[in-house]
Amino acid sequence: MQNIVERLLNGDRRALARMVTLIESEAPSSRRYLAELHQHTGRAHIVGVTGAPGAGKSTLVTRMVRGLRKRDAKVGVIAIDPSSPFSGGAILGDRIRMMELAGDPNVFIRSMASRGSLGGLSSSTRDVVRAMDAAGYDPIIIETVGTGQAEVEVMRTAQTVLVVVAPGMGDDIQAIKAGILEIADIFVVSKADKPAADQTVAELAMLLSLDSNRRNASWRIPIVKTSSLKEQGIEQLIDSIQQHRQYLQESDMLAHRAHRQVRSELQALILHAVSNSLNAEVNEEEWKTLIADIDSRKRDPYTIASELQARIGLKTQRQ
Amino acid sequence: MQNIVERLLNGDRRALARMVTLIESEAPSSRRYLAELHQHTGRAHIVGVTGAPGAGKSTLVTRMVRGLRKRDAKVGVIAIDPSSPFSGGAILGDRIRMMELAGDPNVFIRSMASRGSLGGLSSSTRDVVRAMDAAGYDPIIIETVGTGQAEVEVMRTAQTVLVVVAPGMGDDIQAIKAGILEIADIFVVSKADKPAADQTVAELAMLLSLDSNRRNASWRIPIVKTSSLKEQGIEQLIDSIQQHRQYLQESDMLAHRAHRQVRSELQALILHAVSNSLNAEVNEEEWKTLIADIDSRKRDPYTIASELQARIGLKTQRQ
Repeated sequence: MQNIVERLLNGDRRALARMVTLIESEAPSSRRYLAELHQHTGRAHIVGVTGAPGAGKSTLVTRMVRGLRKRDAKVGVIAIDPSSPFSGGAILGDRIRMMELAGDPNVFIRSMASRGSLGGLSSSTRDVVRAMDAAGYDPIIIETVGTGQAEVEVMRTAQTVLVVVAPGMGDDIQAIKAGILEIADIFVVSKADKPAADQTVAELAMLLSLDSNRRNASWRIPIVKTSSLKEQGIEQLIDSIQQHRQYLQESDMLAHRAHRQVRSELQALILHAVSNSLNAEVNEEEWKTLIADIDSRKRDPYTIASELQARIGLKTQRQ
Repeated sequence: MQNIVERLLNGDRRALARMVTLIESEAPSSRRYLAELHQHTGRAHIVGVTGAPGAGKSTLVTRMVRGLRKRDAKVGVIAIDPSSPFSGGAILGDRIRMMELAGDPNVFIRSMASRGSLGGLSSSTRDVVRAMDAAGYDPIIIETVGTGQAEVEVMRTAQTVLVVVAPGMGDDIQAIKAGILEIADIFVVSKADKPAADQTVAELAMLLSLDSNRRNASWRIPIVKTSSLKEQGIEQLIDSIQQHRQYLQESDMLAHRAHRQVRSELQALILHAVSNSLNAEVNEEEWKTLIADIDSRKRDPYTIASELQARIGLKTQRQ
């Protein structure tokens, strides 16, 4: 009998599902398996899909998966957006469309909780991407709500980031400007059948023309209009993603992004270990005493933190 | 000449401003000062204001500050929302209103960057709250965009959380359900002059009636309508905040929340120290080599993370 790593590398869906469960439950074995899988990764293109709630991300992802299947791709989907039908939220119609996809052996869908510890989300997303990549899924689509830091962090895992904007969400343009613009590689104006769509396209185009800080001026961010009602835009969107992938490979951007991601992954892994160390060193009873002392102003948190650092062995930096 | 701690405790604004700068620049001295200040804190009521971009948070905060000043409160404001005029974003009119407030010696406004490391935001927010608290500001209002994990984390610093919803943002009700409901103590329906306001109030009331998981059923979440156009609702809102503060003091909720916050603060302080340790142990050249080895699949991140943990002294847990 083959072990889980071998089975996963052979594309066994149940082995992959099991691995994802191990990752999510933070089983110690998952790290060993992932260490073995690592050398078999780096093939998949990772596509992030983000945007405000109600922007139409889930419908778009569903249609993207169908379009990619027509081109014979083996597609992975990770849904972190809590309002996504992929995560069990949202409306019945969306969920039914998703169920259709889930029956396809060449589509692997997994939803992940957006709760949990702060670094935990991007870290487990990265691990699940790694497992899907090793199992031969390409591309891998990550869907998330894009406004928060944790979600922006997750989007950094992606190589091509789609920011989805629905027409008439004028206020959101401001929000995009603030946080999302710098990570967008492609803009998608969803619900393009709505009259306000052209206005939204114009606003985005203006926003892009004003942004002189683009890190990589060599990639001109396309604005793609899609409509599920009129069944428009998906082919063009998939082409745009493909063009961006090619651009990344031909420029040095792919390596640049990979380096940044590896570094943040290393840090996340270590912080996670620290958190485990703390839980092993300080029991509930002691936490209560420490907290009560701080709360009653008998002691201060900075001094106690220094003591705990010493107890988990952490070298203290000269200041 | 008095030192910065004494001057701050005497309410010297320049000393407070200097302290906030030290906190934001992560000066080692700030920890020593904050350790001293800690015993003088715990008096201020901390009010979080959150909601989607465009919900009208900034206008609301401006009006709240004016209302609180009428009641002779000394008010602190921390703005983390990047689209807030307090943070330098947003439209001119808002910014002018804010400038008026900033001229009042009993109002202290500080905006903070929502970038930076993940735990860093809630950690430095907490430190700035501590400094304002010690300087006699009460209440202290924290304004942030409420959808992301980092922002939710920041909101946990607050004792009373206002969730602001504008009429006609129907899609956002879904988002609120997913992430924000559990931290809301008061709902504010802004722009109540709009015809859709009553509908939004009804939807929120329904949402609340459906939520059987309320941790503290003894507090009935009020829904307060405000309108800057009609100058309505602010007095009622300030009263509701006051009632919630009283409720927290009379129930055991205040202690409960304080304990949870102290614990997460301790963890954040320690994680931050780890991050500093790593930067001291591994220089840029070595980071590059490690990252290149992982990127080329020569080595895997999990093994390298274990080695780095050993080098910063961290005890390894048996698994």
